[in-house]
Amino acid sequence: MAQKPSIPKGTRDFTPHEISKRNYIFDIVKTHFQNFGYQPIETPSFENSDTLLGKYGEEGDRLIFKILNSGDFISKVDDVTYSSKNSSSLAPKITEKALRYDLTVPFARYVVMHQNEIDFPFKRYQIQPVWRADRPQKGRFREFYQCDADVVGSDSLLQEVELVQLYDTVFTALQLTGVTIKLNNRKILAGIAEVIGAKDLLIDFTVALDKLDKIGEEGVKKEMREKGISDTAIEKSAPLFTLKGSNTSQLDSLETLLQNSEEGSKGVAELRYIIESIDELGLQTAQLSIDVTLARGLNYYTGAIFEVSAPDGVSMGSIGGGGRYDDLTGIFGLKNVSGVGISFGLDRIYLVLEELNLFPKSLEKSLDVLCLNFGEKEALTSLKLTSELRKSGIKADVYPSNTKIQKQFKYANNRKVPFVILLGTEELSNGAFVAKNMKTGEQKTYRLDAVGTFISEL
Amino acid sequence: MAQKPSIPKGTRDFTPHEISKRNYIFDIVKTHFQNFGYQPIETPSFENSDTLLGKYGEEGDRLIFKILNSGDFISKVDDVTYSSKNSSSLAPKITEKALRYDLTVPFARYVVMHQNEIDFPFKRYQIQPVWRADRPQKGRFREFYQCDADVVGSDSLLQEVELVQLYDTVFTALQLTGVTIKLNNRKILAGIAEVIGAKDLLIDFTVALDKLDKIGEEGVKKEMREKGISDTAIEKSAPLFTLKGSNTSQLDSLETLLQNSEEGSKGVAELRYIIESIDELGLQTAQLSIDVTLARGLNYYTGAIFEVSAPDGVSMGSIGGGGRYDDLTGIFGLKNVSGVGISFGLDRIYLVLEELNLFPKSLEKSLDVLCLNFGEKEALTSLKLTSELRKSGIKADVYPSNTKIQKQFKYANNRKVPFVILLGTEELSNGAFVAKNMKTGEQKTYRLDAVGTFISEL
Repeated sequence: MAQKPSIPKGTRDFTPHEISKRNYIFDIVKTHFQNFGYQPIETPSFENSDTLLGKYGEEGDRLIFKILNSGDFISKVDDVTYSSKNSSSLAPKITEKALRYDLTVPFARYVVMHQNEIDFPFKRYQIQPVWRADRPQKGRFREFYQCDADVVGSDSLLQEVELVQLYDTVFTALQLTGVTIKLNNRKILAGIAEVIGAKDLLIDFTVALDKLDKIGEEGVKKEMREKGISDTAIEKSAPLFTLKGSNTSQLDSLETLLQNSEEGSKGVAELRYIIESIDELGLQTAQLSIDVTLARGLNYYTGAIFEVSAPDGVSMGSIGGGGRYDDLTGIFGLKNVSGVGISFGLDRIYLVLEELNLFPKSLEKSLDVLCLNFGEKEALTSLKLTSELRKSGIKADVYPSNTKIQKQFKYANNRKVPFVILLGTEELSNGAFVAKNMKTGEQKTYRLDAVGTFISEL
Repeated sequence: MAQKPSIPKGTRDFTPHEISKRNYIFDIVKTHFQNFGYQPIETPSFENSDTLLGKYGEEGDRLIFKILNSGDFISKVDDVTYSSKNSSSLAPKITEKALRYDLTVPFARYVVMHQNEIDFPFKRYQIQPVWRADRPQKGRFREFYQCDADVVGSDSLLQEVELVQLYDTVFTALQLTGVTIKLNNRKILAGIAEVIGAKDLLIDFTVALDKLDKIGEEGVKKEMREKGISDTAIEKSAPLFTLKGSNTSQLDSLETLLQNSEEGSKGVAELRYIIESIDELGLQTAQLSIDVTLARGLNYYTGAIFEVSAPDGVSMGSIGGGGRYDDLTGIFGLKNVSGVGISFGLDRIYLVLEELNLFPKSLEKSLDVLCLNFGEKEALTSLKLTSELRKSGIKADVYPSNTKIQKQFKYANNRKVPFVILLGTEELSNGAFVAKNMKTGEQKTYRLDAVGTFISEL
């Protein structure tokens, strides 16, 4: 019996209409990546396991999809390991490759392997799927695209400034106005931990602070206390909870707060440079806003930290994020290569555009002209006409079989074709065709030897 | 110690320059797929194992990459299976998903699962990677892209005609002139086997005939004899070896040869319809040529069989192929859906374009304008200028750091940037910038408040 087909949980088929909307986003993103001087690379879908394992923490290792070795994989397992019947010890013996978990580690691997042919600073973008054995849930998939732009080999803050512009440019081009680009700096967080006397508890401190939105000031203080941060320290951190107003006034408060921390002061100076440069250059539709509670990816970033939130009123987590990392390629033996990058959350951006009805109506149209089919001879002439249209870059088609005209019209409606061409026996003998505007119902006759007239009126 | 990175054998990194050449091919193919009314779909990279296994023969099953179940996978293996320590019985217990092996089976699965939302006839294209655990060798990879266009739900021969036009259109657009589209029909092969009295040996007969190019007439006859085809049958098949001349004269010979086979005569009629329609419509640069020895994918195709060979003088196997299959979706329970499709061999097309030097020179340029960096203040003004260029769709960049100008020029040369902008202290105070044409060495000064003049001269 034939099997009833299904797809693995957490994965998706994309229909033509979904693809056209996804490509609309991809194309805009790519165009601006390229205008900003970023170049595309692609890496293999699977990497050697040892390239990926140990790079994402224990949780990450667990979520990496491993590929079973081909052939008689079990014969290579020694008896001791086999008799243990233990998944953790068995897995490394029967798998050598694993599916890409993110684009950052493969990029680091790429940079190290291709270092002699790369012209640094290297601005690369990469838009490829990644796979995670996460529990699937609404908006979380086991296969999804990541979309990253990074610069490696330059520690210039101009890059941070440009990345803010890049976010602004892409979201403006998507007509997604009113996004907020939140900005922080790890050095500021480290400086704060230092001046309040909780340097050793930096991670606990920032993890708590990161929850300010969700659990409020008292909640954050409670969590800090639970993590062993002293009351004195918490008291000293009070200014953080009242940091408000313009970016400039926040910078001034931070400068005062961090005046005795060298690292903190450096962070403030970096933040100020980015803010002032952007003030000078201007943004099109986005807001740039300091947020010292932003602690995203802290054990990874070393300087600027970015996060983009959707416009007010759209309930959606961040739709982008990134930051600077000083030693991306060190894990593969290439030291002192600073990098900074951002990513776009494609699935979420898609949902936001959908919710705000921002996809262009034109994406619904996959065909410009459909010739109905009135029989073998007429269809061949229609195909000749269609070929001329296609050569002019018009998406055109002939209905493949001579079925009921009703059914053919229904197909045209479903595909939202704006023009239907009628070329029946009579038209054929007259050397003519009729074009019907499906919106207005208007019909107009053209000569077959003057298709150009029809094309120019389209 | 840091690990020395590598990638799995049979996989590839793609550099920016390679990507731009690959995208050049992809973009042309997609444009014409769309002009011809084909719509894109995408399916997940992995499918449930039972969707794929058993669909590609024993060899195929062996070459499918299987994904190890997550978590404590081994605990779900019963003791009897485990104690057998047998890879074949163990594999199905520890893997449930497998990487896509081709695009055809996932497409069939897609059509069945989405049958209620699809408007038939459904013309779809799909360009995605597939994975095969094949032994890697020159030009054969474990990860590679397939590129398919298929129509399902129509048995009209107009589709075959269109697919010939599609091949011609795409290869013409790629400036790859002189390709030959070889055409055959399974019904003709079946008819021949029938009239020579070797109906039961159809596969052996065609497999042998398929080797005519390689082993010659005597070789083919020898192999036929070895496979048990009688001398009488081989004698009767003699006309096949002398089929030459125009498509029309070959059709006439075949018609005579197959007059007593209903199936064979039907095949000749189908072939004649396609040939005559294409004669009527004309091709731009390709040749359409009957080849009765073409037996590609015979146990799969039921009607037309296509194969495209590169222009004479380029030693490369086929660069495309396809055919009609009457029951693609039957394996998943949807009967009587006829389909016909073609594929483009992207990696081989890439190699052919490379060999014939057909990639446009413009692909080498990833950046239109580079502003050199003369210091913080100058760079910020350069970034402002660059922003204006980018808004006009010009790929522009600022060199990120104020290093030696020699080094910056070298970077511009390596990236083949046609225009370099010099905006130093003097220019800044004059409100001007200098654009240097890197090819001619010519330098010209523009005003910063009239960037439009520079843009219009680019």
